[in-house]
Order: sequence, then structure tokens, then C-alpha cells
Amino acid sequence: MWQPCRCSASAALRPMALRLACPLAGLARRGYCARSAQRQGLLFRQLFEAESFTYTYLLADTKTKEAVLIDPVLETAQRDSTLVKQLGLNLLYAVNTHCHADHITGTGLLKQLLPGCRSVISRDSGATADVLIREGHTLRFGAFALEPRSTPGHTDGCLTYVLNDQSMAFTGDALLIRGCGRTDFQQGSPESLYRSVHEKIFTLPGDCLVYPAHDYTGQSVSTVEEERTLNPRLTLSMEAFVELMNNLNLPKPKQIDFAVPANLKCGVQDVAV
Amino acid sequence: MWQPCRCSASAALRPMALRLACPLAGLARRGYCARSAQRQGLLFRQLFEAESFTYTYLLADTKTKEAVLIDPVLETAQRDSTLVKQLGLNLLYAVNTHCHADHITGTGLLKQLLPGCRSVISRDSGATADVLIREGHTLRFGAFALEPRSTPGHTDGCLTYVLNDQSMAFTGDALLIRGCGRTDFQQGSPESLYRSVHEKIFTLPGDCLVYPAHDYTGQSVSTVEEERTLNPRLTLSMEAFVELMNNLNLPKPKQIDFAVPANLKCGVQDVAV
Repeated sequence: MWQPCRCSASAALRPMALRLACPLAGLARRGYCARSAQRQGLLFRQLFEAESFTYTYLLADTKTKEAVLIDPVLETAQRDSTLVKQLGLNLLYAVNTHCHADHITGTGLLKQLLPGCRSVISRDSGATADVLIREGHTLRFGAFALEPRSTPGHTDGCLTYVLNDQSMAFTGDALLIRGCGRTDFQQGSPESLYRSVHEKIFTLPGDCLVYPAHDYTGQSVSTVEEERTLNPRLTLSMEAFVELMNNLNLPKPKQIDFAVPANLKCGVQDVAV
Repeated sequence: MWQPCRCSASAALRPMALRLACPLAGLARRGYCARSAQRQGLLFRQLFEAESFTYTYLLADTKTKEAVLIDPVLETAQRDSTLVKQLGLNLLYAVNTHCHADHITGTGLLKQLLPGCRSVISRDSGATADVLIREGHTLRFGAFALEPRSTPGHTDGCLTYVLNDQSMAFTGDALLIRGCGRTDFQQGSPESLYRSVHEKIFTLPGDCLVYPAHDYTGQSVSTVEEERTLNPRLTLSMEAFVELMNNLNLPKPKQIDFAVPANLKCGVQDVAV
């Protein structure tokens, strides 16, 4: 029901055609809101690095103060460590969803800035870190945990981290909002990526929030159901997806030649990983 | 309590000094999380425009599908209207927190893209719009409402929109994360801004989420309590704040000469506002 506002201008009748015509109208039910956070005891911050369009995620248990950072960037590691300190948090883990090719990870520098923090990456990535993780393992912080799912295809070491109640998934470059990561370098495989997304991400609850490693359009979040129905690549057949991905002809990432070697060692060559 | 993870690496003892030394440790309790959104019936999306570092906010009632957009930008209006359509929403209002000087508003174009949508701005802004609003008025969308508070100082028509349960405040340029809008043009007044923030925003609940019109550091949200205690400008005395604001010596915004005249007419000169 439309409710009149108390503004001076009179209320215009609302057009109903849009709602009735939209086959995806039900999607709106799978939205989200940040409002009852503190009751749930999870602090959550989405942070952005404007050069590589990377999202970094801070999650913490508000009671124990234990925290994790997902996909920190070298250039914004100082910002992130300042925020962690301001909020009185205890950063347990600095986690990478995969070995990035477009930016240098901030995990190495964060270990210097926040002593005690441990770097985490997939055992299958070939990179070094304090914790080499695989599907089946769990990263606990207070009452919460991140459960990695193996989602190769962009790289063979890609993990999607799912919050233990399956309400949030940090998909790295496997699944982006209305897109996905490229598959033409770093052991990329479109067949593998297609299977990963369909078997490991699209099988999550429809209202599970999808938080990617990047967005280039200014969107910050999606849901599993939105991507299952609206993603222009992953709604294709596997054959059409593979054909599409094998013919993107994208330029090489600007930073790949120094980012990948650096990221194999947590981003800072001269720091113990 | 730190809980051991099931990873292969052994658990290191966590340093306690950071938490004990931090006078603001309690702030972490005032974090937030997006997880139980759909139960609350509010769809919320934070959107970003990378040229002017502007945040646009989409709020909707997931049941009635009625929606509002706060601070849309001309360059991203097409993106926003696509999202509104994809989610099956019915955009009632395209709202500006004030007459912007750094970008052209998207409200005029959105009225073309989503017929029936009505533009909204403060009556004190001097701009034209379908709805000229003031403190005491309410913008309803489904079961929710935005309640504007008059927060002049950056401009004399600045409004902060507070969600009716006081869990979220859209502060425009009045209060930014660890900062505030400039006060050296468009009827700016540091004394007025100081009073606005202290009397109209800092009096909200401490865990009320602060969503600004811009952030230049990649942060997306703060809380009233964080800004009450950590904002380097607004924690000053009024005298020190005025002295600081009067000596910032900032360059003129690049777009001001065409943005302000355009924004006085909803951003699109040749469209009925």
C-alpha cells in the first residue's frame, strides 16, 4: 500500500505496470538491511580501494573483539589497521580469497602494523602464508566462523568464504555482481569456474548476500538469487559461457607482472609471511 | 575468548595490549551487520559514483516494493534505474540531501527513466522539485519513513534523513566519516554546521548508522558514537572548529559552476522538475 507523505505536494498515483511486468519482483524480498547488527553481535564493514576497485571486508565479533579482514590491499592497509585499532578490535586473520593479479595484497604489511595477525590463503594457490587453508577448514573469530568453499576457475586457488550461518558469501573473483572473474591467465578455466559457481555458490540460500572482491560499476552487494537469475554470464549454458569467456580478449592487468610474484609472498617481499 | 580454528597451523596467542590500551574498545559493540534484513523487510543498497566519490542509497520496503533513492548522480542514474527495475521496485522519490556543488544530481533523469518518481529537496535550498520538504515532514515508503532533520552549515538547505526507527541517518555533507563538508561557499557557516551536527545528529542513538554523501578514503559507514568520539573536527570546541574550517583554503570544486545551476533544477535543465 502506498502511504501518503505529509509533504506539501499532493501524492501522485503510482504506476503499477513496472511491478506487474517484472518477472523478478520477488527478488526484492531478498534484500537486506544493516539495522539489527549489534543484536546479532557481528560488526561488518565494507571498505573500498579506488585504484583497483577492490573491496576489503572487516568482520568482527562485537563481544570478543576478534576480527578478520578479507582481501586487504597494500595501499589501504594503513587505513584498515587504523580502523581496527579505533574500534578496539583484535585482528586474528588477514585473508586472501586468491592470489590477486590486479593489486598487491595488504596482508604482509598488516602483519607488521598489527602484530599477531596471521596471513591466510588457499593451500592450492601456491602462495606462502601463516595459514594454508582448504575447503573443510574453518576460520573462527569469536562466535562466528568463515567456511571456505573451493571455487577454482579464475585461478586454481580461489576460495569463497561463507559465514557459518550462510547469510554472507565473500566470493572473491569467482562471482562478481552481474559478472565473474576472467579465466585467461593464472590457471584459469571457464569450465571449472562455471562448475564452481553453480555447485558451490548458487547452491547457497537465495537470500545469502554476495560480496565480491571487486565491482567496477559502484554496486556493493548482491544476493545468490539475484545472480542465479540476473547474471548475464552465469545464466548461460556451460557451452555458451565457455565460448564467451574464451573470446573476451581482455588486456593484461596492469599490475600482474609485479602483483602476482609479490602476492605469492603476502605482498611484501622482505617481510616474513 | 579466542577459539582455535581447525586449520593446519597452530594457534598463536593473541596480543591483549591493543584491546586494553584502547579507550574506545566499547565502540566495537556498535557495529552492524546486514544479515537479518529480509526479516525486517527493508532492502538497502549503497551505491558509489567513482568520479565524485558520491554514495547513492536505495531503500525499499520488500513487501510493498515502494522505494526511495537518496543522492543519485546524473552519470549513474541509468545504473540505478536498471537496478530498480531488476528488483521490481516502484521508485516513489528521488531525494537530494542538499543542492550539491560537486556533481549533477540524477533526479531529473530518473524522472524520465522511471515515470512517476518525484524529486525531493529542502524548501530552504532554493531549488525546484516536486516535493519541497522541511523538518517535520515525512517521506513514507511502505512500512518505512525518512524523517528529515535540518542540518545547515555546509549549505543552508542541508537535510539529514533519519530512518523512522533511528537506526540509519543519511547525513549528506553535514557529517562525513571522520570529517564534515566544507563551509566556505553556498551560504556555508561553520558555526551553523557545528550546531547542526551536535544538536541534530550527535543526539541520535550511538549505534545509529551514519551514511554520508561522500567518502574519499573508501570507508562506507560509521556510527553516531564513532563520530561523537573519533571525528577529528567535530570533537573540537566550537571555537577551534570555526578556526579550522575558516582556514582550510580548499580549491573550488571542479564542477561547481555548472553543477549548482543544474542542481537548482534537478540536474536536467530541459526536463520538467
